[in-house]
Amino acid sequence: MLLNDEYFMRIALNEAKEALLKNEIPIGAVIVANNSIIAKTHNLTENLNDVTAHAEMQAITAAANAIGGKYLKNCTMYLTVEPCQMCAGALYWSQISKIVVGVQDNKRGFTTMGGQLHPKTEIVYGVLEDECKELMLTFFQNKR
Amino acid sequence: MLLNDEYFMRIALNEAKEALLKNEIPIGAVIVANNSIIAKTHNLTENLNDVTAHAEMQAITAAANAIGGKYLKNCTMYLTVEPCQMCAGALYWSQISKIVVGVQDNKRGFTTMGGQLHPKTEIVYGVLEDECKELMLTFFQNKR
Repeated sequence: MLLNDEYFMRIALNEAKEALLKNEIPIGAVIVANNSIIAKTHNLTENLNDVTAHAEMQAITAAANAIGGKYLKNCTMYLTVEPCQMCAGALYWSQISKIVVGVQDNKRGFTTMGGQLHPKTEIVYGVLEDECKELMLTFFQNKR
Repeated sequence: MLLNDEYFMRIALNEAKEALLKNEIPIGAVIVANNSIIAKTHNLTENLNDVTAHAEMQAITAAANAIGGKYLKNCTMYLTVEPCQMCAGALYWSQISKIVVGVQDNKRGFTTMGGQLHPKTEIVYGVLEDECKELMLTFFQNKR
């Protein structure tokens, strides 16, 4: 198995599917350092009754614990949906090296709402985009 | 004792002083509902090794626990220093009614870095501003 972007995004997608099973907005995150997964999380805002419990926030905390330091300078986050301004802000503070996003969020993503990543952070979009988007559509269609 | 903005900001300032004693950037937060304090926190990023452990983030989680719901629609946050983009984003999601800030942060505050609060959130600045600012200056002068 090739440890490429699609490989890790698929694991983030599985996390998003877990969120969906819990009736959460289906967003998953994985943080990788040296080709090893050091954090694997999904959105839990409803189950935890906590607006801060986005997948990214939990992943940043878990990865810092795994590393034993608060900066994620040599890490990559795989994220099924573009981060919101809160999560972009947290990622800014973490100085993470790279963020790989599945699908953009044109409504609540940080590029729409405002905010910025750290100048040292690279961000790329569109890995397994259709699958990440499909999962979100499934959730919101079932809500209506 | 009058339960006014200065009263609650002074409690947030005491939280900030606790942070200073722990060698943290001295920022404190208090959340009030119906004149009762439901959360009281200070910055713990160094002690917890976690960039997400800002006073505001902890306060939002604690207040949601106290209320038993994730929205802080009838709450006011007293905060010694203007929120960063991460915390502004979290406050956005919380739909908090009001934020009372001690001193602006012209470097890392959300009005400089980008991001927005919820349209229903009112924000006022300048309560006990000098004392909030003084505490920050003390911290950064000691760092040099």
